[in-house]
Amino acid sequence: MTKPMREAYHEQLDEVNGRLIGMIRKTGELMGLATKALLEADLDAAEQAMASDSSINRDQLEIDEQVLELMATQGPVASELRIVTSALRSTSDAERMGDLAVHVAKVARMRYPDHAVPEELRDTFAAMGKAACEMSTKATEVLRTRDLDAAAELAQDDNEMDHLHRSLFHEILDDDWNRGVEAAIDIALLGRYYERFADHAVHIATNVRYLVTGEIEWADSGAGH
Amino acid sequence: MTKPMREAYHEQLDEVNGRLIGMIRKTGELMGLATKALLEADLDAAEQAMASDSSINRDQLEIDEQVLELMATQGPVASELRIVTSALRSTSDAERMGDLAVHVAKVARMRYPDHAVPEELRDTFAAMGKAACEMSTKATEVLRTRDLDAAAELAQDDNEMDHLHRSLFHEILDDDWNRGVEAAIDIALLGRYYERFADHAVHIATNVRYLVTGEIEWADSGAGH
Repeated sequence: MTKPMREAYHEQLDEVNGRLIGMIRKTGELMGLATKALLEADLDAAEQAMASDSSINRDQLEIDEQVLELMATQGPVASELRIVTSALRSTSDAERMGDLAVHVAKVARMRYPDHAVPEELRDTFAAMGKAACEMSTKATEVLRTRDLDAAAELAQDDNEMDHLHRSLFHEILDDDWNRGVEAAIDIALLGRYYERFADHAVHIATNVRYLVTGEIEWADSGAGH
Repeated sequence: MTKPMREAYHEQLDEVNGRLIGMIRKTGELMGLATKALLEADLDAAEQAMASDSSINRDQLEIDEQVLELMATQGPVASELRIVTSALRSTSDAERMGDLAVHVAKVARMRYPDHAVPEELRDTFAAMGKAACEMSTKATEVLRTRDLDAAAELAQDDNEMDHLHRSLFHEILDDDWNRGVEAAIDIALLGRYYERFADHAVHIATNVRYLVTGEIEWADSGAGH
């Protein structure tokens, strides 16, 4: 294979990476919108979030096809096979992140015009929303730089998310909880959506580490509470 | 490319499919064990389920690598690219199914020696566990036969799972519910684990339909309740 062909190939891989970064950036925007819908009982924001998920689904389809066509036409060497695995796993993670943001928006819409989240818990959800969006941004940075220190940082951020998630359960399981069972369930499920969103952001960093090192590690997907 | 090479290649693809079927079969066994742990407050079953998930994770790693190596050495034609996408998506679904079964087992372990599920809801969870295991088995059938009617049947089974899932919410949101908030949250999350497990089984069938027809459709991942 001639050098210029390989160069063109690597340029195309960079293009794929750029599209993947764009896809993940959208998940952060979507979660930002869904969190606004949740905190402000904003029906327009909820419906806008739900509508924009289809663009993320389309991204997955297109990026996956582009990766596979590239591989088919170029016949990658062994180390490049990891690029395929890593990219396909990451589009799958990003697709789920979009779904989870939509789940948040759906809870906001279901309770509208009421607030799904009682006032005393809004700061916690605001913090979870902020952390989720930041983790999505950091995942794009890890993809851009392939910096494994940044990947490790993302795992730290996930600890903060887990801490927020656990604090929700302390509130809803407290003897003083007086918002009823339905609100408690909404909060338990919402907490899980944010926590899973963060897990997928960490997983994208894990995919990049696999790409760089060939090592696999499964993120703890945090059952129980 | 000579015919015998292509034949060998197709034999290897069949082997990959067989391993994928074996991986998905394990998720059904794992969910069966986790459901036993849940319904009988059986600590041994819970811990056995938690321990056996690593074998499913290893399957994903090995099958993905085998698919990619095959692809790299054989340079598949366009229609065969879908085999790669479909296989990698399905191992990812099966890996999540294993995680979700482990989540069920973890709730059983967390509440041991108590039962996580109060007596009046055990029949519903038994039905959800049975449906989950059957859907996992049907997903293996769809992979084996590539029968799109069987794939459609799986979507019907998912409606039954959704129905069971909704019935849980009627119970825990009923005015007569007297098991407290913690039990209600356990049940809401457990319900979600079974429902997500079923979604992934449907998604495997969707992957097979994509493989056969080239058409994509996203399974509804069922937020809200």
